[in-house]
Amino acid sequence: MTARTFTLGEIATELGAELRGDPDQVVTGLATLQAATADQLSFLANPGYARYLENTGAGAVLVTPAMADKAPTNVLVLDDPYLGYARVSHWFDESQTAVPGVHSTAVVDSSVTLPDSVSIGPYAIIEAGSVIGERVVIGAHCVIGAHCRIGDDSLLRPRVTLAHRVVMGKRCHILSGAVIGSDGFGFAIHKGQWNRIAQLGGVVLGDDVEVGANTAIDRGALDDTVLGDGVKIDNLVQIAHNVQVGDHTAIAGKVGVAGSTRIGRHCMIGGAAGVSGHLNITDGVQVTGMTMVTGDINEPGVYSSGTGAMNNRDWRKSAARFRQLDAMARRLKELEKKIEG
Amino acid sequence: MTARTFTLGEIATELGAELRGDPDQVVTGLATLQAATADQLSFLANPGYARYLENTGAGAVLVTPAMADKAPTNVLVLDDPYLGYARVSHWFDESQTAVPGVHSTAVVDSSVTLPDSVSIGPYAIIEAGSVIGERVVIGAHCVIGAHCRIGDDSLLRPRVTLAHRVVMGKRCHILSGAVIGSDGFGFAIHKGQWNRIAQLGGVVLGDDVEVGANTAIDRGALDDTVLGDGVKIDNLVQIAHNVQVGDHTAIAGKVGVAGSTRIGRHCMIGGAAGVSGHLNITDGVQVTGMTMVTGDINEPGVYSSGTGAMNNRDWRKSAARFRQLDAMARRLKELEKKIEG
Amino acid sequence: MTARTFTLGEIATELGAELRGDPDQVVTGLATLQAATADQLSFLANPGYARYLENTGAGAVLVTPAMADKAPTNVLVLDDPYLGYARVSHWFDESQTAVPGVHSTAVVDSSVTLPDSVSIGPYAIIEAGSVIGERVVIGAHCVIGAHCRIGDDSLLRPRVTLAHRVVMGKRCHILSGAVIGSDGFGFAIHKGQWNRIAQLGGVVLGDDVEVGANTAIDRGALDDTVLGDGVKIDNLVQIAHNVQVGDHTAIAGKVGVAGSTRIGRHCMIGGAAGVSGHLNITDGVQVTGMTMVTGDINEPGVYSSGTGAMNNRDWRKSAARFRQLDAMARRLKELEKKIEG
Repeated sequence: MTARTFTLGEIATELGAELRGDPDQVVTGLATLQAATADQLSFLANPGYARYLENTGAGAVLVTPAMADKAPTNVLVLDDPYLGYARVSHWFDESQTAVPGVHSTAVVDSSVTLPDSVSIGPYAIIEAGSVIGERVVIGAHCVIGAHCRIGDDSLLRPRVTLAHRVVMGKRCHILSGAVIGSDGFGFAIHKGQWNRIAQLGGVVLGDDVEVGANTAIDRGALDDTVLGDGVKIDNLVQIAHNVQVGDHTAIAGKVGVAGSTRIGRHCMIGGAAGVSGHLNITDGVQVTGMTMVTGDINEPGVYSSGTGAMNNRDWRKSAARFRQLDAMARRLKELEKKIEG
Repeated sequence: MTARTFTLGEIATELGAELRGDPDQVVTGLATLQAATADQLSFLANPGYARYLENTGAGAVLVTPAMADKAPTNVLVLDDPYLGYARVSHWFDESQTAVPGVHSTAVVDSSVTLPDSVSIGPYAIIEAGSVIGERVVIGAHCVIGAHCRIGDDSLLRPRVTLAHRVVMGKRCHILSGAVIGSDGFGFAIHKGQWNRIAQLGGVVLGDDVEVGANTAIDRGALDDTVLGDGVKIDNLVQIAHNVQVGDHTAIAGKVGVAGSTRIGRHCMIGGAAGVSGHLNITDGVQVTGMTMVTGDINEPGVYSSGTGAMNNRDWRKSAARFRQLDAMARRLKELEKKIEG
Repeated sequence: MTARTFTLGEIATELGAELRGDPDQVVTGLATLQAATADQLSFLANPGYARYLENTGAGAVLVTPAMADKAPTNVLVLDDPYLGYARVSHWFDESQTAVPGVHSTAVVDSSVTLPDSVSIGPYAIIEAGSVIGERVVIGAHCVIGAHCRIGDDSLLRPRVTLAHRVVMGKRCHILSGAVIGSDGFGFAIHKGQWNRIAQLGGVVLGDDVEVGANTAIDRGALDDTVLGDGVKIDNLVQIAHNVQVGDHTAIAGKVGVAGSTRIGRHCMIGGAAGVSGHLNITDGVQVTGMTMVTGDINEPGVYSSGTGAMNNRDWRKSAARFRQLDAMARRLKELEKKIEG
């Protein structure tokens, strides 16, 4: 991979940052304050890391105005250094080496018209009626089912599977192993046996949606499963059929959302949380990790459940007492009656 | 995809339903009561949706006898409208467009005899000694290890991996990303290091088994891992080595079942529940979502654990008190002694 | 698959065990004490199974010196029969039938030099600059990104995906569906929207690392995600970016470890446990299943959280009381004041 280099002057211009230092100094990469060397750029976003600033070996640091004087090196001053870092990070990204073209082993249905700007990897499959946008990258071993639509500039890492009629907007980023449009888990029970219900809905993803590695998003039973614009979903997440997730909501790894639940806009669902089916979670809700959500949440705010790790011996006692809680509450009530008359 | 159409007369005959309305009216699809249009069929199964019946735009509705008079449109009257819907749903399923034949890129070992009725997708691999039933569909990018057996009419969606010696019955349905027959997590610890134990058992699935997207089912250490007839497993489920699941048990998404546990027949394991290893769960047990099962369950019934989401500030207080529960119980006891003598 | 057979004399020599019985007796496989037949070898490791010893039909049993006299058949006496079983198990493993060679359908970049001893399966892909060790087996449909390094004798089951710059040591074992080196879940929020941060770090796995089916291990944001020597990870585990796991730590199925957390050496993390980000877990920590770890753990020992399954009716009462715990504690305090003055 070719090393990419930028001068501090170029970076300042691109970010609209104020440079205090040498505009001709070259940086060849990004690193943390602790690890950065003289040809690397670093950043200070989290005040908890401020102690690393004064001894950093970085060639330059992205900082807020308040911290600009404390750096022993060149600084690029801007209001949101973390955002600046996010932007610069892409310039040094080696992961995207795709060049336009269709690999000779790709199996593309004759009904599909591919723009010249797309990149289709080895052994990728695109089935009938699918529509692929400009500059879309479809990695090796991806399977794109029939009648899918993939918006411009979307990137599918190797081994992504879309079933039929999955629609995604522009600039989506789908990680390896993700399955989108798998059949929802729907059955009609009859005489103790489960009769499968064909899942006739689709999946619709907005623009700028991220779907993590080995995540599964089921197609709807009749209506579609829908993820709004800017929704970010981490690895190993389960999104069941007919779930709706509002714009700019982020869902961390290992979360499960059961069928037909609606999650609002600008929510944050912590890792391994579980959300039951048929619920409404309003906008602006934050759910901490491993929380069990079994009812609607109608007010924005932070919600939690569970209890944290304890020494096993102590935990055994608390867990045993949990079973007695109702009895304890009744005994407490009884005592209060006796004492307070 | 070709639209399929049916007359109400045809549907009534097929379902054994009583038609009150025009037998020649054509329906072209299924939809919810709220969304259905004049050429679509809907259904009323959950009484909670009864309020949508009187204003539905559906061309016809599947209803129970009790609700038949309340619909503003044609009705198909039957005892279990949900089951009727389940059956009709398959007639409109566009997901299954496989035609018999073996794609030219499939790699099929010369020892394998494929029935003419099978459909093998692009880049599928079938290894030595495997036996594939009639009308089996093996999707693109599936890998079928050596000495597997797949029963008639089973459907493997694209990108399913079976290791060697995985056996499944008839009409199984395996979703994309599922891995069946992966090595169980078995090690002998010696001087602080883990020595891997080869997993010599297989996996046996009965008839009509469903396995969800990105689910993993490990092969047994010595004996087989066994799923009975009609077992339904959702996405991202972990079934460890030597687990046995009884007939017609359903396991929702993100459940984990640890090694050598036996789950009975007709159980329902809620989403993200966890079941420890070496347990016995009897028939007819229902476990609610996110429950932690660490002991045998010998009586049918509903079992739960965990606590639901709370406002974070309140939760912090409860969670802190959980740590003090044993002390609280002792103090309560002490007070009782003092008061009651 | 060819049956492999060994005499008891051969096995005794190989394991350094004392044989009490017929050195010429042949065994053709391994089985449990309950299931073993006269041509099979069994073992007694867990004292809980000692009751099966006297009636076993096994042709021979691996036992400790203390149990040697209690077997009705040939015995191989050794200090750690379970370790003996672990070693013998590999001799009967049919899963590994790979022969050296590169399948004609594999797509190997011209920059890659493959040792003659490697086995590369159908439709595997190896991208530019990757270095593959001696006797490495890369299963069907694996994708090895650019600039990866795979140590000698490592085994990648079918359908493993390594993104670019993933490094693993010798004798690693990666199960189907695993994704290693996927992009970490890193975003800078700006005006309510998530701006993706390119993940520039890599993943480094030591020697003898096991990674389970459909597990996801993200690449680091700037530094690498690191798993030490002998780390064993089960199925459907999420290892987020910049996590570090110490040597010989085992992580069971469905665990999630959030970003930048460090787990020490010789730890055991139980199934479906969750570990928050930016934590330090010291060496020798054992976390039981489904535990929620939200703070540092500085002392070795066993840690737990959660509560076990209860009858649903009783559980509802305890769960409701959990919400009142702080009030209960205050009321208890109040009573104590009144009584004790």
